[in-house]
Amino acid sequence: MDHHMISAMVKRVREIFIFFFLAMLSKAIGTKPFWRTREPADGNSNDCLSWRLAVEANNVRGWRTVPTHCQHYIETYMIGGQYELDMNYIAEQIKSYVTDLVVSGDGMDAWILDVDDTCLSNIFYYQGKKYGCDPYDPSGFKAWAMMGACPAIPAVLGLFTKLVDSGFKVFLVTGRDEETLAPATIANLHNQGFIGYERLIFRTQAFKGKSAVVFKSEIRKQLMKEGYKIWGNVGDQWTDLQGECLGNQTFKLPNPMYCVP
Amino acid sequence: MDHHMISAMVKRVREIFIFFFLAMLSKAIGTKPFWRTREPADGNSNDCLSWRLAVEANNVRGWRTVPTHCQHYIETYMIGGQYELDMNYIAEQIKSYVTDLVVSGDGMDAWILDVDDTCLSNIFYYQGKKYGCDPYDPSGFKAWAMMGACPAIPAVLGLFTKLVDSGFKVFLVTGRDEETLAPATIANLHNQGFIGYERLIFRTQAFKGKSAVVFKSEIRKQLMKEGYKIWGNVGDQWTDLQGECLGNQTFKLPNPMYCVP
Repeated sequence: MDHHMISAMVKRVREIFIFFFLAMLSKAIGTKPFWRTREPADGNSNDCLSWRLAVEANNVRGWRTVPTHCQHYIETYMIGGQYELDMNYIAEQIKSYVTDLVVSGDGMDAWILDVDDTCLSNIFYYQGKKYGCDPYDPSGFKAWAMMGACPAIPAVLGLFTKLVDSGFKVFLVTGRDEETLAPATIANLHNQGFIGYERLIFRTQAFKGKSAVVFKSEIRKQLMKEGYKIWGNVGDQWTDLQGECLGNQTFKLPNPMYCVP
Repeated sequence: MDHHMISAMVKRVREIFIFFFLAMLSKAIGTKPFWRTREPADGNSNDCLSWRLAVEANNVRGWRTVPTHCQHYIETYMIGGQYELDMNYIAEQIKSYVTDLVVSGDGMDAWILDVDDTCLSNIFYYQGKKYGCDPYDPSGFKAWAMMGACPAIPAVLGLFTKLVDSGFKVFLVTGRDEETLAPATIANLHNQGFIGYERLIFRTQAFKGKSAVVFKSEIRKQLMKEGYKIWGNVGDQWTDLQGECLGNQTFKLPNPMYCVP
């Protein structure tokens, strides 16, 4: 089949698409409601975008798994470029907020960053968990984290570097268990370039079984008692950004793969 | 051209697409970063999706206009079907929350709904304002609101009806000015089917110049003083859902056209 024939076919198929599009449009103009109810080529992906938006706006809470029919959508979102765009966009927003801050400069200007899917990415792990369509598997995740092989999220590494360079004390606060995961996590953060933070705070025995909101609020409260002023607080979970002593501004990074209650 | 030829062509074009997809995939596997940076067909629409997500997750605050290059994206979002899907999705979430509530049933179970772009749609007006790319025009909006021609948002009308039928006292709380806009707003809500609410509360002289958060917090505080239990609070603006006496759960409806500070 030669090039000319192929391009003729592509053209014909395009004409057919345009015909159907115009047919739909002319139908839509004459109907109520005034916004057109689209029959999308991939109905799922539009539903799944609604789901993702609802998760990110905190309208859907305490969800356990990604809806099964959204697996392909979430895969495309996570590795097709949009997740990276979204991350970059928010990191730029945060950096411009940082630039505009007028801080005390007394060495007590602090920032809080979460670790999993904030500093370090777990996409590789979740690829094996159908991008979150499979339920949470604590021992599987622990085995993965023990490997210390999580890649940095480039946008957040850039933010981290700016914060450290600007003189902020950066506190990494993670729900990872100190007893089992501290060495691997410390090494992983180091080998990915997260160097120069003030403190890496794990979940200790004292907080076992307590919710993320309770644990992280308590940590922030202790930091404020030590005299730190928390200028910003960044996480991929709403539970990173709720509770007490939230800081001057919070930023929610996207994560449609799992929800930490 | 007969049916057989067309389907053969469609098949061939599909094969070409699959070939390119596989070529891209195999390229992606060998490259860093592990997620592929896509060169999207329409770079703008992906940027604008990032912007919209950031707005809905409250990462971008106090914005004044839609980014100019996103006008077409927002138009497509608002009238192409996705906005309606998003609205329906959240309304279903809220309805399922309502169904699961165990209320006191003492006649003091309350809900708060915002009016503009929660109960009533201003899409028609914003079509003339480049879907929010033009700056806020107070007198233009007042003239529009005076016409009393805003259509109901079907998903929210359905929620409203369920709330009233379930015995909740529904309070509509709006930043619209009482003195000038009360009659038109009352008529508009009635002609669109919002019938049976407990009270419609406007912004009065006392709150002129005060922020939406201050005004709406004060109204909710007064309702709680009267003995009402606020089970839910629904609005299209984050400022509807911040401050004091927020209620048992808040729900953020999408609105990428404007931001009320």
